[in-house]
Amino acid sequence: MKTKQILLDSRPKGTPTLETFKTETTELPELKAGEVLLQGLYYSVDPYMRGRMNDAKSYAAPFKVGEPIVGRTVAQVVKSQSPNLKTGDEVVGMFPWQEAFVASKDEVSKIDTSIAPASYYLSILGMTGLTAHLGLTIIGKPKAGETVVVSGAAGAVGMVVGQIAKIKGCRAVGIAGSDEKVRLLKEDFGFDEAINYKTTSNMQKAIAESCPDGVDVYFDNVGGEISDAVISNINFHARIPICGQISLYNSTEQPMGPRLQPLLLTRSALMQGFIIRNFSEQFQEAQKQLAQWVKEGKLKFTETTVQGFDQLPNAFLGLFTGDNVGKMVVKAK
Amino acid sequence: MKTKQILLDSRPKGTPTLETFKTETTELPELKAGEVLLQGLYYSVDPYMRGRMNDAKSYAAPFKVGEPIVGRTVAQVVKSQSPNLKTGDEVVGMFPWQEAFVASKDEVSKIDTSIAPASYYLSILGMTGLTAHLGLTIIGKPKAGETVVVSGAAGAVGMVVGQIAKIKGCRAVGIAGSDEKVRLLKEDFGFDEAINYKTTSNMQKAIAESCPDGVDVYFDNVGGEISDAVISNINFHARIPICGQISLYNSTEQPMGPRLQPLLLTRSALMQGFIIRNFSEQFQEAQKQLAQWVKEGKLKFTETTVQGFDQLPNAFLGLFTGDNVGKMVVKAK
Repeated sequence: MKTKQILLDSRPKGTPTLETFKTETTELPELKAGEVLLQGLYYSVDPYMRGRMNDAKSYAAPFKVGEPIVGRTVAQVVKSQSPNLKTGDEVVGMFPWQEAFVASKDEVSKIDTSIAPASYYLSILGMTGLTAHLGLTIIGKPKAGETVVVSGAAGAVGMVVGQIAKIKGCRAVGIAGSDEKVRLLKEDFGFDEAINYKTTSNMQKAIAESCPDGVDVYFDNVGGEISDAVISNINFHARIPICGQISLYNSTEQPMGPRLQPLLLTRSALMQGFIIRNFSEQFQEAQKQLAQWVKEGKLKFTETTVQGFDQLPNAFLGLFTGDNVGKMVVKAK
Repeated sequence: MKTKQILLDSRPKGTPTLETFKTETTELPELKAGEVLLQGLYYSVDPYMRGRMNDAKSYAAPFKVGEPIVGRTVAQVVKSQSPNLKTGDEVVGMFPWQEAFVASKDEVSKIDTSIAPASYYLSILGMTGLTAHLGLTIIGKPKAGETVVVSGAAGAVGMVVGQIAKIKGCRAVGIAGSDEKVRLLKEDFGFDEAINYKTTSNMQKAIAESCPDGVDVYFDNVGGEISDAVISNINFHARIPICGQISLYNSTEQPMGPRLQPLLLTRSALMQGFIIRNFSEQFQEAQKQLAQWVKEGKLKFTETTVQGFDQLPNAFLGLFTGDNVGKMVVKAK
């Protein structure tokens, strides 16, 4: 059986382009015992994938040139050689960007689409929701009455962070890149304040004004000068979970900036990078909590769905130009 | 009751001299409820006091001209108007350079001289030992087999950090500024490796070579380019307690350097500034542990003791001419 696949054609220097990718047709192997043939339903495109396109040591191994991009995907079982998986079952896992693919039973997790749409397992009940919830609560430790600032606030993770900050009784301040996103955060997602960094000349002052009691938690999705401005406003004992640094991912030179250690020292502040895998033991409990909040209407979620497997490269590139509101997902058909 | 006191007579320009100080006799006030009359036993003289002699904003307020120098002192209760303190009790606190003085019960901490000599509470059981021990163990969390790097390794705190790293079963690597210090760290204080940053052209490479398994904990006393070199070698899940940034203290402009967040993110690393006050609830337990290690001969430190209250100015001036080895303490009688 033949299927379409999207390969990494070359490692991008700076911002990826359509030339980074190549679409080909490949032959699928015969199913062995313990394997399933899967049909992709929803594909997740995420900023972290840019890192895997570099040939550099990181938390995830680099993609290989000439091999398919791999990402989180919801798929349906078409044919099974595993007793625990039957045709029609829906599963989630890290799969190649192919229309169809073969996976071992150990690489898939069954999902229950009776409690949420399948695509939610790529977002609010998946890595996005878990990243927001566990990064904020385990590293950020927000306490009622504190101020939580989140950058990339209109992104998939950011939106959830702000809402959980509100659930925890905090003041939630978001930073985003358009007036429309600012409006959305305040009106639809309950942020107390939101700042459009593209139209704000003095971010440091704008954050000070939006955070009259200073910044206790800064959930950092973007890095760079936006983060400099937030960090200059942190309180004593502030916590800074580093979730992403999207403003720097396409840098071709070592990014330079103000040295942070003197401020971290005088404010007794904590800064910690994390990947969600670090917290895998807390996934189950966190998913229950997230499901509960969604059910109670306390946690709203927005997806941007792009239609068509062939659109995967375009959808990914759109992450870097701010095309998406909330989680970006590609629906196979 | 009259007592002798040593005042700041004039603010020094450059190196202080005996003219900086003046010895006088003063009348002590009557004890009020909650106060104790104390007799000084051991007085700490420290380089940081030079800063307080300037009329400049810093982390500690300037000394006032015509008022006594204030420093960390071990004293004995002579008379008490506090139910929790009785005659003969030994205490430590920030007290004026006087032979006797009155303090409120809230300004004194009782010390236990059954576990260590009183003077140790100004050094290995005082701020120096507590900073090294609690910063390393609470933030650094060293595990047996890991590699701990400490900058400013031949300083009072750094020496203790390296020795505790060894006690915890770690590889200890120190960074210091002379071949003599490097020799001292390796031969007398048990560091596995030490690097003279002043004679090393490629620090990043030197650290990589001294830490073949990477850096798990970096106890940072200095900041700047030395820290950049260490941090570029950190392992996944590394911890970086920030204790000092002495290389940047004299900067007149915002110090710039490579942005650290991308590396903290990809390595899931933690960086945390602290002051020892944050851990005050752990002081007592930490002092017991430090005293135990000293008793067992696992933790070495050196004191230089000068005899006589009147010698306080000379002892202080001696700090700047290298008279002391290790911690300089003045014994009242």
